[in-house]
Amino acid sequence: MRTELINPFVVATTHCLQTMSQTVPQAGEPSLQYDRKAAGAVTGIIGMGSAEYKGCMIVSFDETSILAIVSRMLMENFTQLNDEVVDAVGELTNMIVGNAKREFEKQGIIFDMASPVVLTGSGVALHQLGGAPTIVIPFKTPEGVFTVEANLAPVK
Amino acid sequence: MRTELINPFVVATTHCLQTMSQTVPQAGEPSLQYDRKAAGAVTGIIGMGSAEYKGCMIVSFDETSILAIVSRMLMENFTQLNDEVVDAVGELTNMIVGNAKREFEKQGIIFDMASPVVLTGSGVALHQLGGAPTIVIPFKTPEGVFTVEANLAPVK
Repeated sequence: MRTELINPFVVATTHCLQTMSQTVPQAGEPSLQYDRKAAGAVTGIIGMGSAEYKGCMIVSFDETSILAIVSRMLMENFTQLNDEVVDAVGELTNMIVGNAKREFEKQGIIFDMASPVVLTGSGVALHQLGGAPTIVIPFKTPEGVFTVEANLAPVK
Repeated sequence: MRTELINPFVVATTHCLQTMSQTVPQAGEPSLQYDRKAAGAVTGIIGMGSAEYKGCMIVSFDETSILAIVSRMLMENFTQLNDEVVDAVGELTNMIVGNAKREFEKQGIIFDMASPVVLTGSGVALHQLGGAPTIVIPFKTPEGVFTVEANLAPVK
């Protein structure tokens, strides 16, 4: 697995959660995923595209991890996945991919960001259909877990 | 509602379903959506981005409509939302936004496409968090319904 395609997402995720929510997530072992995956309680999806590269990043949180992250981020105690939490997940999704974009630029990989979509509820399977296998990076926080899954491939 | 932002999606959707699946969908009255929306049985999501514009398009099918569309598309009788149907929805999602992209280019609105994600299962709410309200276009086919929802906004 090419670490230069993984590290930007690890660096960006860690940086965003630290600066936005005083949360230091621990990244676990990345793996490749070829199959569908169940969504967590709340999931941010954002596309990446340019004339040369296209892809998609999905950040999927369990309920305890995101409630703690957003509570610290907005300095208020959230106990439900309400609209404010959804907006905060959209903002985090935007910021993580925005940070990753700057990391990829150092490698000469240029893309623009699409607008995010946030899913609430966990009754679905997610199928990434990019031109490359999807990299899955598990993260642990003191309160729960989340995953970042991303693919980025040259446009054929 | 600016029809020049709606028509490309109507034209692209109608064209793709006609050419790929001999299906002539009837577009209903478009509306603006500010709130979350329940997903259909199978849903394609794809981002759009450039230095000037960003957005996201979601195509969400009920089960009877997509099974009939894919059965005609692949000339085989599908009765379940299996991997082949998921791949076909990813392909349709790609093609619709690819067609819409060419329509938007005539207006000087340029964007690149991200990679699609397909959701199966309907237990979630979808929240579009783009910089513009989301346009929802309902479509009817002989076998069922689907919706196209999209937003596209200048990058601030």
